[in-house]
Amino acid sequence: MRSNSYGRLNTGGGPVQVNMAGGWLLRPSRIVPTILLILIIVPLCAHYYLSKAVNDSSLGHERHLLLDPSDPLADLSGLKCDNAKARVQELFSIKASVLNELRDMEQHRQQLQENIASATSRIESLRQEESRIKTELERLKTSVEQALLTQREVFEKNMPQIVAPLRITATQKDNIPLPLPSSDSVSQCRMHNCFDYSKCSLLSNFPVYNYDVDKYRMPSSDLEAFVKITVKQALGYNAQVTSDPIEACIFVVLMGESIGSSVDKVNLEETLHSLPYWNGDGRNHVLLNLGRTFYSKNIFEGVNTGRAITVQSHFYSHLYRPGFDLVTPPLLGLPGGDLWQNLPPLVPAKRKYLLSFQGELPRLRNYLDKEEHPLSSNPQIREEVAVVEELMQLEHTHTDDQFLLQFTCQGSGGYGDLEEWQMCETESRRTQVLRDSTFCLVMAPLSTFEITTVTLQARIYEAIKYGAIPVILGNHVELPLSETIDWLKLTIVLPKARVTELHFLLRSVSDGDILFMRRQGRMVWERFLGSTQVLLDSILATLRQRLNIPALPAAEEPSVSVFNGSFVPLKSDANIPEPDTDENLGPIEPPFPSIVFTRNYTTSLLNGYEIWNVWGDPFNLYPNLPTNPILPTEAKFSGSKLGFRPINAGSGGSGKEFSESLGGNSPKEQFTIVMLTYEREQVLLNSLARLYGLPYLNKVIVVWNSPKLPPEDLRWPDIKVPIQVIRAERNSLNNRFLPYSEIETEAVLSVDDDAHLRHDEIVFGFRVWREERERIVGFPGRYHAWDLNYGGWLYNSNYSCELSMVLTGAAFFHKYYASMYSHVMPQAIRDKVDEYVNCEDIAMNFLVSHITRKPPVKVTSRWTFRCPGCPVSLSEDDSHFTERHSCINFFTQVYGYNPLLNTQYRVDSVLFKTRLPHDKQKCFKFI
Amino acid sequence: MRSNSYGRLNTGGGPVQVNMAGGWLLRPSRIVPTILLILIIVPLCAHYYLSKAVNDSSLGHERHLLLDPSDPLADLSGLKCDNAKARVQELFSIKASVLNELRDMEQHRQQLQENIASATSRIESLRQEESRIKTELERLKTSVEQALLTQREVFEKNMPQIVAPLRITATQKDNIPLPLPSSDSVSQCRMHNCFDYSKCSLLSNFPVYNYDVDKYRMPSSDLEAFVKITVKQALGYNAQVTSDPIEACIFVVLMGESIGSSVDKVNLEETLHSLPYWNGDGRNHVLLNLGRTFYSKNIFEGVNTGRAITVQSHFYSHLYRPGFDLVTPPLLGLPGGDLWQNLPPLVPAKRKYLLSFQGELPRLRNYLDKEEHPLSSNPQIREEVAVVEELMQLEHTHTDDQFLLQFTCQGSGGYGDLEEWQMCETESRRTQVLRDSTFCLVMAPLSTFEITTVTLQARIYEAIKYGAIPVILGNHVELPLSETIDWLKLTIVLPKARVTELHFLLRSVSDGDILFMRRQGRMVWERFLGSTQVLLDSILATLRQRLNIPALPAAEEPSVSVFNGSFVPLKSDANIPEPDTDENLGPIEPPFPSIVFTRNYTTSLLNGYEIWNVWGDPFNLYPNLPTNPILPTEAKFSGSKLGFRPINAGSGGSGKEFSESLGGNSPKEQFTIVMLTYEREQVLLNSLARLYGLPYLNKVIVVWNSPKLPPEDLRWPDIKVPIQVIRAERNSLNNRFLPYSEIETEAVLSVDDDAHLRHDEIVFGFRVWREERERIVGFPGRYHAWDLNYGGWLYNSNYSCELSMVLTGAAFFHKYYASMYSHVMPQAIRDKVDEYVNCEDIAMNFLVSHITRKPPVKVTSRWTFRCPGCPVSLSEDDSHFTERHSCINFFTQVYGYNPLLNTQYRVDSVLFKTRLPHDKQKCFKFI
Repeated sequence: MRSNSYGRLNTGGGPVQVNMAGGWLLRPSRIVPTILLILIIVPLCAHYYLSKAVNDSSLGHERHLLLDPSDPLADLSGLKCDNAKARVQELFSIKASVLNELRDMEQHRQQLQENIASATSRIESLRQEESRIKTELERLKTSVEQALLTQREVFEKNMPQIVAPLRITATQKDNIPLPLPSSDSVSQCRMHNCFDYSKCSLLSNFPVYNYDVDKYRMPSSDLEAFVKITVKQALGYNAQVTSDPIEACIFVVLMGESIGSSVDKVNLEETLHSLPYWNGDGRNHVLLNLGRTFYSKNIFEGVNTGRAITVQSHFYSHLYRPGFDLVTPPLLGLPGGDLWQNLPPLVPAKRKYLLSFQGELPRLRNYLDKEEHPLSSNPQIREEVAVVEELMQLEHTHTDDQFLLQFTCQGSGGYGDLEEWQMCETESRRTQVLRDSTFCLVMAPLSTFEITTVTLQARIYEAIKYGAIPVILGNHVELPLSETIDWLKLTIVLPKARVTELHFLLRSVSDGDILFMRRQGRMVWERFLGSTQVLLDSILATLRQRLNIPALPAAEEPSVSVFNGSFVPLKSDANIPEPDTDENLGPIEPPFPSIVFTRNYTTSLLNGYEIWNVWGDPFNLYPNLPTNPILPTEAKFSGSKLGFRPINAGSGGSGKEFSESLGGNSPKEQFTIVMLTYEREQVLLNSLARLYGLPYLNKVIVVWNSPKLPPEDLRWPDIKVPIQVIRAERNSLNNRFLPYSEIETEAVLSVDDDAHLRHDEIVFGFRVWREERERIVGFPGRYHAWDLNYGGWLYNSNYSCELSMVLTGAAFFHKYYASMYSHVMPQAIRDKVDEYVNCEDIAMNFLVSHITRKPPVKVTSRWTFRCPGCPVSLSEDDSHFTERHSCINFFTQVYGYNPLLNTQYRVDSVLFKTRLPHDKQKCFKFI
Repeated sequence: MRSNSYGRLNTGGGPVQVNMAGGWLLRPSRIVPTILLILIIVPLCAHYYLSKAVNDSSLGHERHLLLDPSDPLADLSGLKCDNAKARVQELFSIKASVLNELRDMEQHRQQLQENIASATSRIESLRQEESRIKTELERLKTSVEQALLTQREVFEKNMPQIVAPLRITATQKDNIPLPLPSSDSVSQCRMHNCFDYSKCSLLSNFPVYNYDVDKYRMPSSDLEAFVKITVKQALGYNAQVTSDPIEACIFVVLMGESIGSSVDKVNLEETLHSLPYWNGDGRNHVLLNLGRTFYSKNIFEGVNTGRAITVQSHFYSHLYRPGFDLVTPPLLGLPGGDLWQNLPPLVPAKRKYLLSFQGELPRLRNYLDKEEHPLSSNPQIREEVAVVEELMQLEHTHTDDQFLLQFTCQGSGGYGDLEEWQMCETESRRTQVLRDSTFCLVMAPLSTFEITTVTLQARIYEAIKYGAIPVILGNHVELPLSETIDWLKLTIVLPKARVTELHFLLRSVSDGDILFMRRQGRMVWERFLGSTQVLLDSILATLRQRLNIPALPAAEEPSVSVFNGSFVPLKSDANIPEPDTDENLGPIEPPFPSIVFTRNYTTSLLNGYEIWNVWGDPFNLYPNLPTNPILPTEAKFSGSKLGFRPINAGSGGSGKEFSESLGGNSPKEQFTIVMLTYEREQVLLNSLARLYGLPYLNKVIVVWNSPKLPPEDLRWPDIKVPIQVIRAERNSLNNRFLPYSEIETEAVLSVDDDAHLRHDEIVFGFRVWREERERIVGFPGRYHAWDLNYGGWLYNSNYSCELSMVLTGAAFFHKYYASMYSHVMPQAIRDKVDEYVNCEDIAMNFLVSHITRKPPVKVTSRWTFRCPGCPVSLSEDDSHFTERHSCINFFTQVYGYNPLLNTQYRVDSVLFKTRLPHDKQKCFKFI
């Protein structure tokens, strides 16, 4: 019977066990109530059944008695009650003593349990201590190893450290001038026989002397005030211009405008030859003829310009010396500044007219008016008529394509030389047509000896300005600065013979290519041709590149400390918090800077093409570019070991081996944290203190945006790397991206003063950035969404599977982009950031995507920096969002398109959430 | 008393609760025994205490009775026993009935419980059914939407589909030839006035007619047999060569070699003018002078070559017409084939000598021998002496740099013209020096009118061949095919005046730049100059690019079915497995191809530079390139909607919205699966069946590697997309990467027949590939490790945090790379793959990293395709690994360096392992 009752007990326990099995899949929060319930129910049930079992067994006895009266115990019921009293008393005393015993035991048990608990906790804390010490030891060990390696490298390295080039000019004696070759004919002038390199050492910085236009007046010159003033101004802004003619490498002479053909050639020649630094043959002189009318065409014909280089918009083929002279558009734009304002947007790719042309060739007017064949025997005229006839047929073809082709001007006729296709209408009317044209026809001059004219250049200038892709018919033309600008990327140049294939060719250009060419045209116009400033800078940069003299180093922002020179800020290591992970994330090394300016003389050779045609910035020499070439992987084991830290000395691995070395494809480096702060000292100090022990950290730059200087008694945490507190000129979010001179590494980690990132996140982000140096590498992602109701863009911070921005509240980017943001990006964008006190991160994402045509890289699952639990939207109010919407749309207007691109992935460490065998370690514990 | 006993019960439960709280931190495996223990102990304790409480209370009664005898119930003990018997019997019967009742109830309860269980399971299965149907519906709905959208687009799209260009030649009448301009002077010839475009329509495919050398023999020609034979052979391999002179665009005339200066100019001119297609003025003729000795220099001087283009290694500046004539190196290499065999490796960057030169200028020999100043009044000689003196000082400078500068030849003197720096020694001796030189000095010809000579070209040719970067002193030289090859990326050209700065400049070139230039030199040499075949192909490609006629489409592999034309394979949908996820991963659309050949006429304009200098393949026109330009993000909402599928119509999102649309930066597309199989039908059929319902799948191509054809009764699963079973010519792993004509999409997913990927993994991989079209996107990662003991590379498949390869057992890549692998990659690599029946994946990773200089992209945490539990190493045996080690080292030899690059990250979907609010969905459930 007893076993039966146990059987029931088990049955009662059955469903409980099943629940528990199911409970494996439950969260801990559900386990507790379940267990409590069990703890209450099970004892009660058990008690019920056990009691029942006892009762049953006693009842069984009775039944037994009833069923079998012959049992000898049947007279039990008649037992005497007297005996019982004594036994009960005995039982009482036994019970009392047992109870006492039980109480003692209970006390003892509790005592023991307390002892055990305290012992356990002591052991636990000892263990923690032990592992902490072990990690610290590990760190120290790898740090020591790194230090030793560095030391060895310092001894081994043979190559001297290269810094920004020094200025060594022609006044110094270490330049051995070589005899110049004889120049028998001006028309044979090339750089090798007419240019004097002895004045232009590689280290000379390319000093340019500008003859004062008012002092050295060219004869018969009606120099337009606009040209005169803006050129002078533009050269004033160019840092290569020097006032000392002795040290100058080249001499700039601004020519006047000649009205009609009344140039006094003799007088002009005499004036040139009597220039104070003409030196007999005009070596290294640059004759700038930037006249804006076709009257300025012929001024050097019959003039002996000696060894001077001529720069102008008009050339006859026999006067143009390729590789020596330069073709330039006339000065048609603003003096300088941002140039985006009047430009049309890039999209839609296809505009109203597939092709447009407005012009008039005076010699053809009669024929075209009267539709009679010209009687000319000139084959060029005959050819031109055939071309025009072919073009006029286009409008009658049976396609959906629209053309606007006018071969005679309305009203008063055209403007230009008689031998060329003159321009019609006013500029504003032409602008309208160009804004409506996908392609814009540019007819080359009639004479193939005229390789460029002012009118031709004006047409091309206006076309690319308004996004109509120039289709140049006549392949004898010479395009502006063609030595450096790849015009094939933004124009279509065809021989006249291909006019029959023109329509087919234009139709075959896909939207992607149209938009690419339009974007390239806009870039070339904005950066190289659009204003007097950029045009002069581009002309000088082309000449400089010919000489392979590097540009001047890009301007850096001086890092002015908030502290007086004598003041030593107080330090404290009191508030250093415990590390948020006990992982060894890398060696702690003393700060060392990135190696800079190693490609001063090779960038313009190896990347001369990209500098002009992809990156669009030949004007600055950067300490490093995000696109430096990557060495072959074996170089780090053979010949070029310096600075490389292959994982596990090259045999690879995970866990400890991985964390000890940076690995990757580039040498070891560190990063700089730039932290913007405004009047919340404690938040700042806490953030700084958390950086203690962060591997690969070079320096922290705190940008003190408040005009109130930090209190002198502020105790700065001693985090073992320098903390530079820099006084901002004014309170601006743009200060976050200034290229401070104190930033000595390529990698910059921009961080909000209240953003909280763990050390492992930072180190992982840094490792990823080292592979994606061109892109921004950040944590929370955001995106631009199309406004389905009203068109235009909306900023969106919702959870999404497609991103296009990362927040710069904590993001890695190359210092190069800090320069681009501060000095190359249009001023209007920085102004908008200041106006809203917002959007600086959007601006940075726009900039980098514009330059790279790549989206940013989001790393790890992090979606916010603060308050991990609460939804993102709570921390940001409505006006904040409205501003950000309007920023995106405004920036889009400035660039002419929205450069942001989508990405659908994010980046984790290689073994994140991977099941590993027990003897293997991950790359990071939590990433 | 009762409450007291409950109190004890609680106390007893106390420690249990504590244990449970501790149990939160325990693993589930420990919870179960703990709970079991509790379940046994607690009821027992409870029973003990409860019973004790009952006993206590009854004892209490007794005690009460004992202590207080005056109680009226005190005589209870003397109660009559007879009464009791009746009551007990009564109780017995009550109990029996209660027991029966209980038994009935228990039975009833069990019955009910069974009912409940079966009902629950029925409901569960119904629910599953419901959700399955719902998902299916959802899928169908989006599929219908997509179908409608596609239909609308077909109506909307205005642009005609463009296919590979048709061949329209000059025999057809739709070419309207324009009158040619008059040519008054041969020396003024440029393309616009001397070339007849009417024979070279954009659609003509650039047919080339080659005059048979034996039939049209040039006078006084001692055409070397080598030149004659290899040129004929090379032109035979060029698909643009035609035998029909009527349709030809250009006509090639191979000139002879003239010994000494005894060229019979009159005879030569007459012979030229009497060529059958000379047509009076030799228009569109190309005179190829590939002579390998300096005797062939002057042959066209004084000969009227009409409008013909001359191509040779020697030019005087007054005879060279830029943009018309071409400079070429002499034919110094092999006839054709792989060219890597004798080339030295790229590393180490710095070789024994910083700079080397061996040569002799006969006119300086006297001076240099006797160390006397020459009495020459020739300024060029004086200049040369100054340059040599400056150079000779280099060897005496106090630096670590070594120079090898010999300005007189040993022994019998030099080889070459008297007016130039002759070459010394034998080729093998020169080779030795070049292999030991970082830079190699190339002295320009003495006369600046000589812009290129055979000797100069031979020097440059040998230097880049052996990885010595040419430093050309004298900037009047013209380099080979400079119209298309950017020589600044592989040589340093300096004016002679800069000789003083030479050492400084060379020292300033970093290892990265040295290796970049050496690699570029090797590429230019291998692809454009090294053999007769590539040189002739490059000359013709340069001329073709001038005309902007696209190259011929890249060869595709014909897709020959294993089945007879009449045979219809049996289909079956019996073995379609359940989908491994109920996620809706995207719309199921009918297969559509990628749009191809849209950039036929723009690629060489917009990317002409990259085609030659970055991608190194101007010889083929590809249907698509991985690097096509990306449209601005607003284009998909304005003007260029076609094919774009923005997430949630542009407003972005996750979960359902994300899965419904591809999003991204490029239009919708699909991918093709290529599956290699060899004699395991069932494995194959199972793999195929698993592809049922896979979104974005266009087609499956099964490459049947076995010579045994599939049995006719094989039942192929009906997966709703075409399965093409292609008969391989022979059993080769290289077949995996053939560019089959049946592949109609840009994206190719190469899959092993036994690899098991889930649908969500495939779709995610595809989405990532769409962003990284240049790279291989794969799942398990591998890496190359440096052999610390013996040097060289080891293949490694261990878990690692740094990768450099992904397995192509399942990887996405662009079809372009299939062409490159099969037709551009050196044959030796494919041979090695066949030899080992292994390493094809390593070869593909090498190729793509070589072209892009980027590592592959690893997606998701997957580390193997098969047998998820067991360690990787078990499935691969020792010889397999040994082969793979030796493959890496062999391929490294072929490329001259190991192109693999490291990556430390892998890619997941944006919201992978992210905590989301309850109303938000992830991008994928498990990725």
